[in-house]
Amino acid sequence: MLYEVRDPVHGFIVYDELERDLINSKPFQRLRRVKQLALTHMVYPGAVHTRFEHSLGVMEVASQLFDTMMQKGGHELLRALGIRREGERERLRRVLRLAALLHDVGHPPFSHAPEEGLLPGGHEAMSAKLIREAEIRAIIEDQHYRAGIRVEEDIIPVAVGVKHSNARLTAVHQFLSELITGVFGADRMDYLLRDSLHTGVKYGQFDLHRLIHTLTFVQDPKTQDPFVALEVGGVHAAEGLILARYFMFQQVYHHHVRRMYDQHLRQALRDLLPDGQWPLAPDEYVAWDDSRVEAAIFHEASAGGSRWASILANRLHFKLVFEAPEGDIQRYLDQHSDLSALLAERFGEEVYVDSQNRPLVRDRELNVRILGRQGLSSWVTESRIFGVLPPLAFLRVYADRRDDLIKDVRNALSRFVG
Amino acid sequence: MLYEVRDPVHGFIVYDELERDLINSKPFQRLRRVKQLALTHMVYPGAVHTRFEHSLGVMEVASQLFDTMMQKGGHELLRALGIRREGERERLRRVLRLAALLHDVGHPPFSHAPEEGLLPGGHEAMSAKLIREAEIRAIIEDQHYRAGIRVEEDIIPVAVGVKHSNARLTAVHQFLSELITGVFGADRMDYLLRDSLHTGVKYGQFDLHRLIHTLTFVQDPKTQDPFVALEVGGVHAAEGLILARYFMFQQVYHHHVRRMYDQHLRQALRDLLPDGQWPLAPDEYVAWDDSRVEAAIFHEASAGGSRWASILANRLHFKLVFEAPEGDIQRYLDQHSDLSALLAERFGEEVYVDSQNRPLVRDRELNVRILGRQGLSSWVTESRIFGVLPPLAFLRVYADRRDDLIKDVRNALSRFVG
Amino acid sequence: MLYEVRDPVHGFIVYDELERDLINSKPFQRLRRVKQLALTHMVYPGAVHTRFEHSLGVMEVASQLFDTMMQKGGHELLRALGIRREGERERLRRVLRLAALLHDVGHPPFSHAPEEGLLPGGHEAMSAKLIREAEIRAIIEDQHYRAGIRVEEDIIPVAVGVKHSNARLTAVHQFLSELITGVFGADRMDYLLRDSLHTGVKYGQFDLHRLIHTLTFVQDPKTQDPFVALEVGGVHAAEGLILARYFMFQQVYHHHVRRMYDQHLRQALRDLLPDGQWPLAPDEYVAWDDSRVEAAIFHEASAGGSRWASILANRLHFKLVFEAPEGDIQRYLDQHSDLSALLAERFGEEVYVDSQNRPLVRDRELNVRILGRQGLSSWVTESRIFGVLPPLAFLRVYADRRDDLIKDVRNALSRFVG
Amino acid sequence: MLYEVRDPVHGFIVYDELERDLINSKPFQRLRRVKQLALTHMVYPGAVHTRFEHSLGVMEVASQLFDTMMQKGGHELLRALGIRREGERERLRRVLRLAALLHDVGHPPFSHAPEEGLLPGGHEAMSAKLIREAEIRAIIEDQHYRAGIRVEEDIIPVAVGVKHSNARLTAVHQFLSELITGVFGADRMDYLLRDSLHTGVKYGQFDLHRLIHTLTFVQDPKTQDPFVALEVGGVHAAEGLILARYFMFQQVYHHHVRRMYDQHLRQALRDLLPDGQWPLAPDEYVAWDDSRVEAAIFHEASAGGSRWASILANRLHFKLVFEAPEGDIQRYLDQHSDLSALLAERFGEEVYVDSQNRPLVRDRELNVRILGRQGLSSWVTESRIFGVLPPLAFLRVYADRRDDLIKDVRNALSRFVG
Repeated sequence: MLYEVRDPVHGFIVYDELERDLINSKPFQRLRRVKQLALTHMVYPGAVHTRFEHSLGVMEVASQLFDTMMQKGGHELLRALGIRREGERERLRRVLRLAALLHDVGHPPFSHAPEEGLLPGGHEAMSAKLIREAEIRAIIEDQHYRAGIRVEEDIIPVAVGVKHSNARLTAVHQFLSELITGVFGADRMDYLLRDSLHTGVKYGQFDLHRLIHTLTFVQDPKTQDPFVALEVGGVHAAEGLILARYFMFQQVYHHHVRRMYDQHLRQALRDLLPDGQWPLAPDEYVAWDDSRVEAAIFHEASAGGSRWASILANRLHFKLVFEAPEGDIQRYLDQHSDLSALLAERFGEEVYVDSQNRPLVRDRELNVRILGRQGLSSWVTESRIFGVLPPLAFLRVYADRRDDLIKDVRNALSRFVG
Repeated sequence: MLYEVRDPVHGFIVYDELERDLINSKPFQRLRRVKQLALTHMVYPGAVHTRFEHSLGVMEVASQLFDTMMQKGGHELLRALGIRREGERERLRRVLRLAALLHDVGHPPFSHAPEEGLLPGGHEAMSAKLIREAEIRAIIEDQHYRAGIRVEEDIIPVAVGVKHSNARLTAVHQFLSELITGVFGADRMDYLLRDSLHTGVKYGQFDLHRLIHTLTFVQDPKTQDPFVALEVGGVHAAEGLILARYFMFQQVYHHHVRRMYDQHLRQALRDLLPDGQWPLAPDEYVAWDDSRVEAAIFHEASAGGSRWASILANRLHFKLVFEAPEGDIQRYLDQHSDLSALLAERFGEEVYVDSQNRPLVRDRELNVRILGRQGLSSWVTESRIFGVLPPLAFLRVYADRRDDLIKDVRNALSRFVG
Repeated sequence: MLYEVRDPVHGFIVYDELERDLINSKPFQRLRRVKQLALTHMVYPGAVHTRFEHSLGVMEVASQLFDTMMQKGGHELLRALGIRREGERERLRRVLRLAALLHDVGHPPFSHAPEEGLLPGGHEAMSAKLIREAEIRAIIEDQHYRAGIRVEEDIIPVAVGVKHSNARLTAVHQFLSELITGVFGADRMDYLLRDSLHTGVKYGQFDLHRLIHTLTFVQDPKTQDPFVALEVGGVHAAEGLILARYFMFQQVYHHHVRRMYDQHLRQALRDLLPDGQWPLAPDEYVAWDDSRVEAAIFHEASAGGSRWASILANRLHFKLVFEAPEGDIQRYLDQHSDLSALLAERFGEEVYVDSQNRPLVRDRELNVRILGRQGLSSWVTESRIFGVLPPLAFLRVYADRRDDLIKDVRNALSRFVG
Repeated sequence: MLYEVRDPVHGFIVYDELERDLINSKPFQRLRRVKQLALTHMVYPGAVHTRFEHSLGVMEVASQLFDTMMQKGGHELLRALGIRREGERERLRRVLRLAALLHDVGHPPFSHAPEEGLLPGGHEAMSAKLIREAEIRAIIEDQHYRAGIRVEEDIIPVAVGVKHSNARLTAVHQFLSELITGVFGADRMDYLLRDSLHTGVKYGQFDLHRLIHTLTFVQDPKTQDPFVALEVGGVHAAEGLILARYFMFQQVYHHHVRRMYDQHLRQALRDLLPDGQWPLAPDEYVAWDDSRVEAAIFHEASAGGSRWASILANRLHFKLVFEAPEGDIQRYLDQHSDLSALLAERFGEEVYVDSQNRPLVRDRELNVRILGRQGLSSWVTESRIFGVLPPLAFLRVYADRRDDLIKDVRNALSRFVG
């Protein structure tokens, strides 16, 4: 029996009974009430979509990647994956789908924002924990499905990486994991398209169909292990994805108001949560969702209990006082710790320094193999725009909305600006 | 100073200072936490979008309608609207925009579903009340803007109709109101496109641009009052809208699971709300939003306090036991009250009968004037598919998920089915 | 080895070596110079797209239909199609693809318009002839491909129907043919989307993905022959296609200027072509394309050789003098032959009467089987809007652009109008 | 009286009587039979769209640019443009629209490809000539319209630049011309979207709406002359356009097969045309269109008259023997003239060397002014990806399809490759 659900990005998403049972589980249903982009909807009102639809989308795209590769690679890929017995291919496909479905199950309310300082180990560790827990584990290991899938050895390493599992990393799991979280993995493909759709920011679009159909695999000459590779005909589609990501970071994910709200949310949660962080017992953890947090914030705000809750409830976020000019960003980043220390000393929590400095394209991305007519090459040689994209870097200083404070902060900053 | 916000349907929506202040008001900000389609997202996961973005969208489309008509009708339309002094045109445009922005401000959490039995007067009366209240009224009447707009005489009648206002109906207000809530009004245009986008149901699409550009006005030969009319070249675009609406009702708004959740939500709210209905004092009313309701439902469910809250929290909605066949619907509707009475007597709240029977095209819609080369005619003569569309009609019986109950209900129904 | 080509409707279309050789053949390449919609581009400037891209698109959609059905129906469908040996499934898929690719190969320049009176047997007969001819037949039957496909028994009956073939109709061929030219066949699906895209008329859109995934098959209880059927969940998608077709006929295919140009094109070709009709010898036939016709028309026009060529070259098409009102169409259609006879007698070729009267939904369409939870039913019971759509009917009178003539024609018509 | 036409890119395009008369003129109607992208459709089958629809599109986008700027700049822009009398604004708008409509009217058949060596002065000189000619000039200067527009002083300089006109360049004309052919001009915006749509290559998309709404003007501090500028909020939309252009060049305009066909077309035309080039007398020039050329090529090919016509008719284009690797392109470009000379001497017309080397972003583009909160800045400082894009550069060697020849060419090339 197959089931299906409408999806605004992929049309329909089809799933089977085992998947249905996982979707129906309490931890997964909770994702219906966890927004994909935290408080981004304060800037882009359409951005209230949830991890629930994203998780279904990742399962869908991962399957498309797997099926397309299988169609193209056929026996060769099966051999590279060490698949000999019949049925094993189907089993791996299922591992991939379940891992994709569950890879975000451990996200706290509002997804990424309230992890730092509030959730030791991050959402990946919690995903592993919840997958390992009674309800999800029992469904996957139910004899009824005879799927032969092991939670610890199969699902967890593929879903969240071997470091959160007790199993050792196999080449097959590494390959499947790449299909989910890799440079051209289903996670990234889905969130760019989905966030773009719901925010209305058109820059997140790229040619999904083309990219999927030009991804392939190559084998390591020594170990024969398979790796995801890109046909040379897909270089432009891949550039499209990289640029879509660049624009989405610039316009949405790193939007200065959104980043400030992320911080206020963390501050408010420190006040609101028992012991100032998310409870780690699965049952208690799963009982938290966006609604409960939001209701608590508004309640606190009206009761005058937490300054940060009030700031959130009344949209009185700190104001951007300074942003380092893009052309001169490195000079400021070099002074980051001095600047942060000084401001913290003088203004304490009245001021917030936010900065990022990471390459748009990480080293492992530069290693993506390109498969051309003359054999293997790399991004660096095949794409002329890939290597030239600037890093995702900014340095911003925010302060509470008092004119005198803002003036003082500006003064304090003046010696750095020089 | 103009402001703008990204909108997934219309690209960008621009607004001015007065509008910004209204948007920033507490009652309007609350719409960020009121889902447009209640619990429809339990069926269509993408449908978590809010009244906030819809309200901005209606303001945008209403302006486009007004501007396009002004561009085409020019002096004639100004005369028909009785506008003589300069500035009056700008004032009317503003009335239209503010009324469009505010027309849904009184919706309870989850929009339409929890009105029946829970909010006397419906959301329109509450919209009027909130508009009339201190915060919104003060902003509109602030001398700073010199907009000359009257809350009672201008905004309320145009936003929610004259029956909720103390003012008398003028032809001008009637005309502006038509641009918002009429057959081809901004409200309908926006929600069809928006609900279609976020659900992923493609049937809600129609040619917005074309429809806007073929809407025009005619004057009543006797009174000279202006009415919205359609150029004959827009008949197909208008048919597109009507059909989009038909499909959206069939697929989304009347989806049987969604309708059942609507009822469970009303049932749970009767348990949860103080006195079993929404508080009518504006401050208290505005303090309720989806998050607070949702948090309360999950809290009640885990505390075992309300059966209906448990049903919602655990997704154990009543099951559809019977649906009248479309071809034979009238026969069942005729027996509706007998059938309801019988089932209520025998099964009480264990069974729910849901039915609708209204023309897709209401009488006033049949009166839309079509402006052709040979003068005025009507929908009925110009559109060959308009008149033939079936009514929105269904009759459904649901019951709690117990096999014996379902069997009993089926038996009880058998004498009607014959 | 696989090849691919960008397609504006379907993204990419992939084809194999045998298909490439057919695409490269002279008769197929000629379709690059045969416009899909004749002179429709005189009304919709974007409509200059060709039978070449449409033919590739039909091959693509037909494959998607076949693959989806196979995926869902699996062994059952194979059995219903009488497929026992391995490889036979692949052979049938190939028959389908080649037949889809070639089904329009016999179209004269400008596609449909210049068939009547100019091409005995229509384009289907010519398609059969060209497929049967040396070049195409040689490619298909080339030993190199070992495809085991027979031109006369497989390709021709599936591509253009058994009446143009010497083979007898098998249930398998009937089924494959349905996938191409049936009610929900690839031909119709492709042309609606493609014509919609290039003309910019949005009404031709429908949910292709959904429709493909809800088409299935049923077996005749007696003969066990398979027939295309629709799952009940696809009814709205199917209604979408039917309505798209209705709108495209109203807006594009039956546009009054386009229909008049069709007639002028036939008239000009009677003057231009040797013996007043298309040469039937394949080599000669294939040497005609849109460019050659167009160049000849402009040459004739500047040389003053053919009145109809001049009319086309200078866009002086006959003007619409009268169109029967839609509400009253039947009364006029009843008088059609009297009216035509009278006008022909009095005005000869100075006047042109054009009419159509055919149900949007033909009888065979009403027979489409719907597969629901309670077994088979039909369109008539499952769709509430299917049966109520009006026929495609019009009656128009055009005349040359002379005021006195137009006046005379109007007078002559007056006795019918009464 | 206004007219309208459906456009696949912009929905509807509206035009007035004067514009209608120009559209109906013989030189403009001829654009219906001039493909926008020459023989690109041999690679991308959908690319058969014409200069006719593009020209209408440029008129539409130019108007949107003008209207948006006027809306935002209002009196200031009018003053900067030196407009004092009422009506002058309307006159300038009309100059812009007519110039946009007519700017491509002089293109030879197949647009750009067959200019080099075949049309002295290029299509711009011919556009100026045709605009200056009897038919178009007479329409524009017709007293009926009282538009006060001068062909020589207004239309020609704005449409094709002052170098093809006898008038002197005014700041106003310069500004209007920028709106058509500038970095962010209507010409570029339209062709990217249109070529993208019809080819199916998605990379040509960008956020047209956003870009139009963030373009503005600044005045030269000394002369007060107005220049097109970009608001800082539009930088990402502008980057989107630049990248769209980059991708379209890479994928479509510089596709190696398309470039080879361009050359074969020039070669064939040298054989076919009287005196080996386009006739310069307007009447004779206008009598040539794609159909006439295509018909002549096929006729020549079947008569065995021209080797190049045969190559085109039978799709036997020269094959790509060598392409300089992107990473090493400069070294090859440095040897370009040596390499060309050598190959020409040894292989004559059996070999074709094709190369390009121009910055994606020209100097004048780097000068685009960006208007931010702190005043004016430039692309270079505001956009982090603008300056890093690589030039449009390639060097390719093609040869006729004989194995021995290709081998010889490879050998000859070997000394350069080292």
